[in-house]
This record gives sequence, structure tokens and C-alpha cells, in this order.
Amino acid sequence: MSEPHELVVTWTSPDQPGLVHAVTGACAQVGGNLTECQQFTSADTGNFFIRLQVESVSSRADLESAVAELAQRYHATFHIDELGRPVRTLILASKAPHCLSHLLFNRDTGRLPIDVVQVMANHPDLTNLAEFHKVPFRWQKIDKESKTAFEEEVLRTVDDLDVELVVLARYMQILSPELCEQLSGRCINIHHSFLPGFKGASPYRQAHSRGVKLIGATAHFVTVDLDEGPIIEQRVQRVDHSQTVVQLTAVGQDTESATLNEAVRLFAEHRTFLDGMRTVILS
Amino acid sequence: MSEPHELVVTWTSPDQPGLVHAVTGACAQVGGNLTECQQFTSADTGNFFIRLQVESVSSRADLESAVAELAQRYHATFHIDELGRPVRTLILASKAPHCLSHLLFNRDTGRLPIDVVQVMANHPDLTNLAEFHKVPFRWQKIDKESKTAFEEEVLRTVDDLDVELVVLARYMQILSPELCEQLSGRCINIHHSFLPGFKGASPYRQAHSRGVKLIGATAHFVTVDLDEGPIIEQRVQRVDHSQTVVQLTAVGQDTESATLNEAVRLFAEHRTFLDGMRTVILS
Amino acid sequence: MSEPHELVVTWTSPDQPGLVHAVTGACAQVGGNLTECQQFTSADTGNFFIRLQVESVSSRADLESAVAELAQRYHATFHIDELGRPVRTLILASKAPHCLSHLLFNRDTGRLPIDVVQVMANHPDLTNLAEFHKVPFRWQKIDKESKTAFEEEVLRTVDDLDVELVVLARYMQILSPELCEQLSGRCINIHHSFLPGFKGASPYRQAHSRGVKLIGATAHFVTVDLDEGPIIEQRVQRVDHSQTVVQLTAVGQDTESATLNEAVRLFAEHRTFLDGMRTVILS
Amino acid sequence: MSEPHELVVTWTSPDQPGLVHAVTGACAQVGGNLTECQQFTSADTGNFFIRLQVESVSSRADLESAVAELAQRYHATFHIDELGRPVRTLILASKAPHCLSHLLFNRDTGRLPIDVVQVMANHPDLTNLAEFHKVPFRWQKIDKESKTAFEEEVLRTVDDLDVELVVLARYMQILSPELCEQLSGRCINIHHSFLPGFKGASPYRQAHSRGVKLIGATAHFVTVDLDEGPIIEQRVQRVDHSQTVVQLTAVGQDTESATLNEAVRLFAEHRTFLDGMRTVILS
Repeated sequence: MSEPHELVVTWTSPDQPGLVHAVTGACAQVGGNLTECQQFTSADTGNFFIRLQVESVSSRADLESAVAELAQRYHATFHIDELGRPVRTLILASKAPHCLSHLLFNRDTGRLPIDVVQVMANHPDLTNLAEFHKVPFRWQKIDKESKTAFEEEVLRTVDDLDVELVVLARYMQILSPELCEQLSGRCINIHHSFLPGFKGASPYRQAHSRGVKLIGATAHFVTVDLDEGPIIEQRVQRVDHSQTVVQLTAVGQDTESATLNEAVRLFAEHRTFLDGMRTVILS
Repeated sequence: MSEPHELVVTWTSPDQPGLVHAVTGACAQVGGNLTECQQFTSADTGNFFIRLQVESVSSRADLESAVAELAQRYHATFHIDELGRPVRTLILASKAPHCLSHLLFNRDTGRLPIDVVQVMANHPDLTNLAEFHKVPFRWQKIDKESKTAFEEEVLRTVDDLDVELVVLARYMQILSPELCEQLSGRCINIHHSFLPGFKGASPYRQAHSRGVKLIGATAHFVTVDLDEGPIIEQRVQRVDHSQTVVQLTAVGQDTESATLNEAVRLFAEHRTFLDGMRTVILS
Repeated sequence: MSEPHELVVTWTSPDQPGLVHAVTGACAQVGGNLTECQQFTSADTGNFFIRLQVESVSSRADLESAVAELAQRYHATFHIDELGRPVRTLILASKAPHCLSHLLFNRDTGRLPIDVVQVMANHPDLTNLAEFHKVPFRWQKIDKESKTAFEEEVLRTVDDLDVELVVLARYMQILSPELCEQLSGRCINIHHSFLPGFKGASPYRQAHSRGVKLIGATAHFVTVDLDEGPIIEQRVQRVDHSQTVVQLTAVGQDTESATLNEAVRLFAEHRTFLDGMRTVILS
Repeated sequence: MSEPHELVVTWTSPDQPGLVHAVTGACAQVGGNLTECQQFTSADTGNFFIRLQVESVSSRADLESAVAELAQRYHATFHIDELGRPVRTLILASKAPHCLSHLLFNRDTGRLPIDVVQVMANHPDLTNLAEFHKVPFRWQKIDKESKTAFEEEVLRTVDDLDVELVVLARYMQILSPELCEQLSGRCINIHHSFLPGFKGASPYRQAHSRGVKLIGATAHFVTVDLDEGPIIEQRVQRVDHSQTVVQLTAVGQDTESATLNEAVRLFAEHRTFLDGMRTVILS
């Protein structure tokens, strides 16, 4: 069996002296050569984070057992993956096409290492878009009665299709606390404002009424606290007094697409780490 | 008496058909040639705003009476000024030098048409800075007892020195509602965050704890509602997880200086208009 | 016959006193109310530019004759159009889908007022994309022998379909001087660099070898001087030393799409004016 | 003798397997704990770069001998310094104050770890500015005859005052090839344009005549090839057709100050590495 050209190792543990040396030692011990190495120690939490790209290891299994042994000693969690392997992704959407279209376009052109195993929506509007990009699409109306059933379907899909990442591409529904819990650390939302400003509904209307000069978007991990999850990426664009709510929305949607795309890329390349209520991005 | 080379006319009134034609007609009637003309009609309030730069008028007095006559007919407020005349400015400051230094540097190099007639502070720290830039500086401790006296001194200074603009250059004191009222429409504050996020104290500490990826600053007109006045300018800079509160503060202060400077420039060039709780910037 | 709700008037002429008054007078004379008015006088060329949005005119024909009469007196060129009418557009493309996809997506969602009457390419790769967006697509190999025939076909299409705008969406072929001449002022190209840097081929490779920290894109009117036409829009994104040529290209293509889209929007909304080798953008 | 709290280790060598492990091992061996670790391997040149921040080593001398031994084995160059120690800096200037003022302000407020041991200029204009910031200032007219003498004085100052960094803060003189050679890798220039566009004189005039929509500045290491040295930092700001050359210059100078300041910060924190004609920035 041929071994992958390059592996990605990510590791989180309480900080202590000698950790970089130890983790890189595990790589060296199985013949690995590092091509990338980023590390961060959080003064807030005392957590240590490292991301390594390794080539030429004797075998993936060898590297895994070397790192696993070390992880036990240092109370670490770790993950090893092939560099560039598409991450199995479930996208939840509603009616607005911009975020879904941007993600699928970038997947198709090879810039976004995701494998979109399913798109689920609560409206049929995006059927053609999904079909054009040849991704499985399913939709189902959501109301008070059916919401629980829909969420169970989401969880079943996550299980059945080995989903690693759930992306809320302007899904417009609030997830139940149970679902947030279940998807913790692997579910990314795009919020249509520069958080923490303009939480809640109609942020572009709020932005217009305050006469802001920049509007933004925030991609964050989903937590039970709505719009308060750890922030992965934020972007803004300049606007002015002459722009109507409709025009602000158009500019905002461009910003949402780009922001969500970048957050998904960072996750899919194993560059995002959770550090309490903050993220560490090793890029 | 020689006439100024170029005049600036600003005008606000309820919208109605023919207003641009009428106002430009008043200029043409006294021989004026327009070198700049920007107009905006607010769909929110029905207000009409126009800013004109006019050269070659027969005399300033002629233009003033022509426009005044028109203003009465259309229930307008208007202002006529020489282009580039330095606006008489009072700066309130505290200990932090960055905003004051930036404003004075840009005044000295001729990029900011303001005449700093007085700097007032509640600490002595900025004495040398003011002296180096040759602007009058006065300081006085502010506590519960002396706050009212300080504010009365501010108002007296505004009156005595014909102050047209009051700039809060990180003044760090909340103005009394009475003072806000008195300075309405001619007092600019710099808020050290991207409003409406992170109101109140320690915004960079708040920004750090939320792990934001951009930090910003907002220059706004001062109103009784703290941090809620009409926004004139906003800017942001990118930050990341590795930056401490101290480093975020340094980046933030650069952004504050640049943002306040731009807002003051827009005001001093007569480009800012109030439209309810929003600003119209004709630039 | 019902009249359009709002008309756009654009006008270019040698500057002289009273022009704003005169042009807005022509609008007022036929009952028009201005909803937008921007003006610029070029100190470099002495040209005067104005763009008006007018509602409530007695009829479009009335406005046209009023403005035409004035234009003759002032040696002006002018154009009157319905606000928001989709501009008849021919897109030339090659293999790369990003610019075409972005333009068609924004047309479909109503943000870009263009009517794509034909897409022509020198490769078949974009057939499906055009089909998905339901725009006519034709392709034809271009080599030394067939290039002239292809260009004649372009001109024939422009004539037959009343094309108002030709967009080179990464067409990758140099237009002949004759074609440049014929399409002068109505043909927009996207150059994959921040002009005037990195002219010619492989700009992202050049950018990588110079280790630039920002890469950009430039949308400009096509002229005989390759990559030297009047600039309509430029944007940049931050990059760093770790990004390969492939990654720079991905970032660059995003920037190209956004930049071209904005330039096309400005043109389609009649906001772009030529002033010698520069553009004036009234927005 | 008390040891410094934290040391910075920088290392450049040909790449080979095990290097991160080896270098971090040298730190661990003397009791060091890493607080920051960034690494990059250049695919273009095969060079390996690492920057470490280390605390709690038994002694600086111990760390130095441990790393020195390793460096010999791996044909590396390395540097060890106290974190935050101000870098001894010579600034060359001319008449324009903006870059010098910005650097000195940021030094004074503790944001820029430099010790300005001397400012040298070819005009007396900046005397007061230097005096206000309490840095030694010397000026001397430069003409054909005296240029060599001035450059010799620069080199003598570098030697006498143990200068580690020479900053050309809009010095406006072309350094002789000999001086470039002598200062190689420790001399930073600010170029008033977004290189590689607008090389040579009057870039803002060139930018105006091309009607660019963004103007920028580039900070780079000085090499014999004028304006072609490895780029450290680039920034841009948006401009439009209405801005005169004077206004473009004002916007450009703000950009220059910020760009040069950031490049100096990166150098002073030992974050800049040379990789052929490119820089690697470990931040």
C-alpha cells in the first residue's frame, strides 16, 4: 500500500516545557521531515497548540502510534490526516444561493478541500444549483412540528455519511441546544454582520439605520449561545449613506460568501483550534 | 477688498422638485462657476442635501444674499465659507497622546484645515506635546466637584474663542447631557471600537476575550445617548489570536488616530451633514 | 404608453460657467425631480461630467429633446436611459470559469443590470456553466488563421445583437488594434495584477518571485496599448511568503472576479466616464 | 547576575529532516520552555527558517553554546537576543517629517522596540522634531562632492554606535553600491508606491496620470538594484479621480508612515528573514 505524500498532525494539550521538541521528536523517530510547523501557547488558558505537516514517514500507522504514545503522556488530544484530503461536509441551506454557490464553485475548482456529501434545505429553491454542481440535495419544510424530525435527520446524516463538518450556509433556522451540543466544534455558521454588533434579525436594516460606514460578516463555530460562538474569520467592506438596505444586503452577501469560504478552508486544512471561547488559527 | 478664490456652499432642506436647479441658479446669477457639486436626497427623511464649490462670484456678499433669499423660500438652512479656511477647533484630551499628536501633525503639514485655538485636558501629561506644536494648552483636574466647573470652562472657551468644532481626542470623560445639547452637531468623539460592538469600557479587552479577527474605531457626532451618535467614519485593521490586549490596543490606537483625523477633515471641509441619526458625507 | 419611473442622464462637455444650472434646468423644465446628482470637472482636461437620476418627467421624449437642444449649444455628448435597464452585454471568455461564473451569478440574483446576449469562447470548457445560467454560448478554436474570422464574428455579433458592452472575462487573447478601435469605450478587460505592476504573462508567478505582500487585479477599458487602458476599478488582497504560485492564483482569481464585477456594475449603471487616459467614476 | 525573562532565537540553514526537533532540543536541554515557535521551509531555495521564543533557560550563555554547537553541524547562521531589547537604529532622513515623526512617536509610546542612536539628514528641517523626541540629530548638505563624505560618515556612525538597523525614512538619496553592499540585510527603505509599479521619481504624479484607484507603499531591504530589494511590507489606500496630486501625496504619506513602521517593527522583533530575493516573515 502506497503511503500518502504528506500528513498533517494537530495536537492540543496543557502547556509544559519541551512539548515542541517532544512532538517533533515523534515525527523524526519515524523518519518524518517537517514542511510546516506552527505553534501557539495561550496565556489565557495555558493550552498548547501545534500543527505540523510531515512528509516521508515510514508509514502513517507508525506515526500514529508514536504520537498516540506521546499524547497519553501529555494528556493531549491529537488528529492525523492526509494533507489535502477532502473533508466530508454536510451543508444546511435555505433559499439564498450566494454562500452555497461560492462554496461549491471553490470546491469544483479545487481550491476548497471539501467533499460535499449532502445538502439539506428547508426550501426547494436551491435544487438546480445543487444539481449543476452534482451534489446530493434534499429538502423538507420546517415548521414547529417537523423541526425536531429535521434535526434528527441531520444527525442521522452526520452518522450515516461520516460527516466531519456541518456548514450553515445561511440556513436561517436556530439549532436546538441538543443539536448544537452534538455538533460542537464541527459546525460553522456565517452571521450576516460584524459581530458582536447587530445580533439578531435584519442586521443590514439595523446597519442602515445606524448609518455605518463598513459592513461585515462573521464566521464562527456554533454554540448554544446564539451568535456568541468562537469567531473563525471576519471581513468588512466599505459602504456609504447613499446605499439602500437592498444594496447593503448585496454588498453584505458578497462579504458573507468570502468569509464563510475562508473559515471552511481553514477548518478543512486543520488550521482551526478551540481555546475556550476563542479560536487559534495556525496559518 | 479682494474676494476669496473659491467658496463652499452647503444647504439642507426638505426635498422638492427643482432644488438643484434653483441652488445652482443662485450661484450662476452672481457669476459663479461650480468646481464641485454633490447632492443627496434621503429616502428615509425626505431631506435634500447639497454641497457646492463656487469660484468667480461677483462678491461673497452677493452670493450670500442670493442664497439667503432662496433659503427662505425653501425652508433651508445653509452655510457659506471660504474653501480651505481653517476651522476654529477646541480639542479635549486626557493622558493618551496618539489622537492629539496625529491631529496636530496633520494640521502642521497643511493636510487638515483646522486652527487649534485651545487644547484642554484633565491631566498635565500632554503639555509638552502641545507646546512642541505651539498650541495653547490648559489642564485642570476633574473630579465630582470640579466637573461642572470644567464643562462651564469648555462652554466659555467655545464662546470666547468662536470655536466651531470641539474634538474629543480620547478625552475619557462622559459629557453631561447639557454640554452634549449645547455642542450638538459640532462635537466629534472617537470611540475605540467598531460600533455598535463593544460599547462601554475596555473595548480591547472585550475584543480580545471574544477573539475577534478585526478591530476598529468609530468617529461619531456626540449626542446624549453615549456611543450612539451619528457615525462619520469607521476603519478596521486585521488582528489574530496571538496578539495580547496590549498589542490590540496599539493596533487599535493607530486606527483611532486615522479614523478621527478623517472625520475631522470631512467636517472641516464641510462635507458632513446630519440626517436624523445618520450622517450624509458628500465627498 | 406608461413612462419609466426614473431616467439616467449622463453628459460630457467642455467646462464653462452655469453648466449644472443649465442641465438641471432642462430636467426641471419637463417636470423632472432629481433623485441623484453627481458632477466633476477635470482640472487636467477641462472636461465637465455630470450624471443625473430624474423621476416624474412629462415624457422621456420631452426630456430627450430638452437635453439635446442644450447639448448642441454646449458641444456636449449625452446619453439618456431608463434606470436599471439591463445593458446588452457580450462576454468573451476562454477556459477559466471564475469571472464568467461571478458575473452570471450576480446577474441572476438581480445585482448586476446586464443582459448577457451572448458568450463567445475559444474553448468549449465553459459550455455547461453558460447552459446552467441559460445564456447563449458559442465557441470556436482560435489560431493564427482563424483569429481574424473570430474577431469579425465578434463585431458581427455586436452589430446583430445591439451589444452595448463587451466584457473580456479572462479571454486570454490580445485583441487586434482594429477591434480595440471599434470597441473603444465599451470594452472592459480584467488584468490579473495590480497595474502598472506585473504587466504581461504569468503575473502571479512574477508576484511570487518578488515576494509581494499584496496581490491585486485591475479592470480597465481596452485600448490599443495593452494593459494601459483607463482604469475603472482595482482591488487587492493580503498574501504572505508561505503561499505558492497556485495559492496566489486562487486568491488572485477571487480578486479578479470581484474587481471585474464592480467595473461592469459601474458601467451598466452609467457611472463611468472617460477623461483622456483616466476614468471619472460618479458613484 | 539575573537572566533575561525571555530570549529570541532565529536560525537559517539548508533544510534537512529533524531540524525543528534538533533546534528545540537545544532549548530543552538548557531548561528552556518555548512560548512561540514559527517555522518555514522555502520550496524555492531549500532554506529552513525558524524563530523561537524561549523562557526559563539555565543561562543565556548555556543556550548560546548549545545552539552554536548545533549550528556548526547544520551549517546554520543563528542569532540570539533578549525579547524586546531595543535595536540600535540609525535613521537617515531629508526634509519630509512624516516617516520620522511616526517612528519616533511609536518608539516613545513603547510600541516600537528601537533605540534611535542617531538621525542624519541632508537638510536642517527636521532639527526641531528630533529635539522634541530627544534623539541626536546631525545634518550636512549633500552634493556631488560631499556625497562620498556623507556616506563615509554613515558607515563610521554604524561602526561607532554599534548600529544594527539603518532606516531610510524618505531619505531621497540613492545610496552608492558600496554602501548598499555594506548595509546589506540591515537597511530598510520606504518606497512611495506599490512596487513594482511606479518606480523612480514622482510616483504620485504617475499614479494620478494613470488614474489608479488604490495607491500604496512598499518597505523593502535595500539592495544595489534600486527599488528591487526584498519586500517586507506593503499597504494601500483607496483613492478616486477627484483627488489631486497633492491629495494623493497626503494619502500616500500616511500609507508610507504606517508601512515603514510595520517593517521596522518586524525587523526589530527579529521576524524578517532573507530568502534569495524574497523575505520570510515569521509573525
